[in-house]
Amino acid sequence: MSDFPLLRGWHFLQIPGPSNTPGRVLRALSKPTLDHRSPEFGILTKNILLRLKKVFKTTGDIIVYPSSGTGAWEAALINLFDPGDKIIGCETGHFAVLWKNLAEKIGLEIEWIEGDWRQGAEAAKIEELLNKDKEHVIKGVMVVHNETSTGITSNIPAIRTALDRSKHPALLLVDVVSSLATTAFAQDDWGVDVAICASQKGFMMPPGLGFNSINAKAVNASKQSKSVHSYWRWDRILEMNETGYYPYTPASGLFFGLDEALTMIEEEGLDNLVARHKRLAAACRAATAKWGLENQCLNPDEYSDSTTALIIPNGYNADELRKYILTYLNMSLGSGLGKLKSKVFRLGHLGDFNELMLMGMLSGVEMGFEKMRIPYQKGGVQAAMDFLTNSADS
Amino acid sequence: MSDFPLLRGWHFLQIPGPSNTPGRVLRALSKPTLDHRSPEFGILTKNILLRLKKVFKTTGDIIVYPSSGTGAWEAALINLFDPGDKIIGCETGHFAVLWKNLAEKIGLEIEWIEGDWRQGAEAAKIEELLNKDKEHVIKGVMVVHNETSTGITSNIPAIRTALDRSKHPALLLVDVVSSLATTAFAQDDWGVDVAICASQKGFMMPPGLGFNSINAKAVNASKQSKSVHSYWRWDRILEMNETGYYPYTPASGLFFGLDEALTMIEEEGLDNLVARHKRLAAACRAATAKWGLENQCLNPDEYSDSTTALIIPNGYNADELRKYILTYLNMSLGSGLGKLKSKVFRLGHLGDFNELMLMGMLSGVEMGFEKMRIPYQKGGVQAAMDFLTNSADS
Repeated sequence: MSDFPLLRGWHFLQIPGPSNTPGRVLRALSKPTLDHRSPEFGILTKNILLRLKKVFKTTGDIIVYPSSGTGAWEAALINLFDPGDKIIGCETGHFAVLWKNLAEKIGLEIEWIEGDWRQGAEAAKIEELLNKDKEHVIKGVMVVHNETSTGITSNIPAIRTALDRSKHPALLLVDVVSSLATTAFAQDDWGVDVAICASQKGFMMPPGLGFNSINAKAVNASKQSKSVHSYWRWDRILEMNETGYYPYTPASGLFFGLDEALTMIEEEGLDNLVARHKRLAAACRAATAKWGLENQCLNPDEYSDSTTALIIPNGYNADELRKYILTYLNMSLGSGLGKLKSKVFRLGHLGDFNELMLMGMLSGVEMGFEKMRIPYQKGGVQAAMDFLTNSADS
Repeated sequence: MSDFPLLRGWHFLQIPGPSNTPGRVLRALSKPTLDHRSPEFGILTKNILLRLKKVFKTTGDIIVYPSSGTGAWEAALINLFDPGDKIIGCETGHFAVLWKNLAEKIGLEIEWIEGDWRQGAEAAKIEELLNKDKEHVIKGVMVVHNETSTGITSNIPAIRTALDRSKHPALLLVDVVSSLATTAFAQDDWGVDVAICASQKGFMMPPGLGFNSINAKAVNASKQSKSVHSYWRWDRILEMNETGYYPYTPASGLFFGLDEALTMIEEEGLDNLVARHKRLAAACRAATAKWGLENQCLNPDEYSDSTTALIIPNGYNADELRKYILTYLNMSLGSGLGKLKSKVFRLGHLGDFNELMLMGMLSGVEMGFEKMRIPYQKGGVQAAMDFLTNSADS
């Protein structure tokens, strides 16, 4: 083995996002930069905003920021809440913790529902806290729909039911960064007041765009907020969006790519897209079950369709496996985050992804196990092929 | 199964060329068209011609045509021979037959060494014909180095030895379309007078450029030719190439891509590149052997490192398998050509190709067998993984 062999062929970008950007989107992104005050950009924006609503399944408003997903998290919180306000957070994994840390930094007080990072947000515990809060001090509930760090999808409708049963007016904020356009999501039907997303997962785009999808209740709440901030203000953006523009320079080049990505999503149809992710994720789990590696997600009802996080056997280092696979097999896998560092590795199976890309990915993992002498049961790749050929969809 | 599902993710272009064009080359190809009489183009051309010589391993001259490989075949013949001239052809497969047909159309007389398309060109039979030709009526020998239609690589040094032993002055013309930059080839060391190539195989480029790599003996012979032709004339091109230009409009945009492809070949190094192809081809054959499908190539010494042609079991149709795999698994495989139609299908494993692309390809074939109920032995994909993890190179 040479230390750094030169690699050829496709790089398998199998982290749980940024996902693989399709050639069509890359070509759209390569259009010459345009004037963001031109009629062309106004038309492009208005068109994109309308189409985004169909992806979020909302009749509300969509704010597009030149930001990362973290920026979109902050935007949602700072538009809605004031320092000292109390909100509920659910410890589903690393990203839930990061969001909580951010909320604390901007002065919010968090009612933290601790978790073991092996299951989704617990609706019953949320309901219990809301029921106790007779004076409606709690202003919001924040939940990560798909925890990218653990491969666990929380049941958002169950949480909405908890809010409804407790007759509590708290706002429901949901991080859909790695679930939107990979997993079923319906903002209006599910009563989500703010959905937070970013461009680099289901949208198959490079990072750079953050989204707040907000309903009327959220807009009204934002009008009461006394937080001091400017960049993230929904009101200024909503006002200018009416004519298709932004109060500051938008990441206009990325809009070209998003436009093409939306076309691809529309061509496939959200139902088909979700079914494809479900089928490929199930094939992935057929492999991991055969290997005998433990899934970080304990509850099969909460298995993620965009990410599978696997626990490396005791005494082995997940990062060494990842390093081997990156160096010799030209594939990036996700690392264990936070307290899962070196103990977990993550397979991303989202976005512009298909059967043979999945098989390439799984073969790389299985060969990695073999080369790094990690205890596993052979036959995972075969199990995934068996799953795919036995399932009805192809 | 829906009839034409919309496919997502990478298209696995596993025909034996055109091969997958890497992003770097695509981006180079997207440069704005330049003036082919500008100083910039002259410098680009001279640089490319120098670097091409290292790939062909020659100190001779390289002619680059705006043409397909077929054009480059005709160019070589029409520059060297006159109507009525006799040359030897070897029936290694479909492309050898096409080349012969072309030669006949331009008036050449072919001494045709028949073959069964299951082995390479026979040096002994060439030697026999040359030995009989005491008056040196035979002007040339044309051989296809790697028969893309059958996955068979002929032994060119053995044919050179046949020429040398018979002390016959016939020119040696070799089609290296699918062998150059995939398989060991050394024009000068092997005494090849004209090597014919095209851009869409080992060069990882789209089709559109044809090559004639010619030594001094070939150039001298071309000066005696009385064939009536203009477009393909070496003399005019050689003369203008001295300053980096062409007598007519070259496919200048493709030169940008070729420049980048040459950089990629140089970065990897030809020895490493050839070793990579050899290793991936051997892994492919580990799978096909396990499946129990018969290789069209009978002689293991002649297995191609760029293409594997497999015979479909009796009573089954290779094109139906290919259609299923294209429609449902987003992969193009090569069809059986000429008399092999529907009986053979071909796997291309050349160019910008790696382990996990190979595994994706093999998984697609194995799943295709399963879905189309083609008799095969499971475990081919596993066998390829075993080969790759047991071989020393990674």
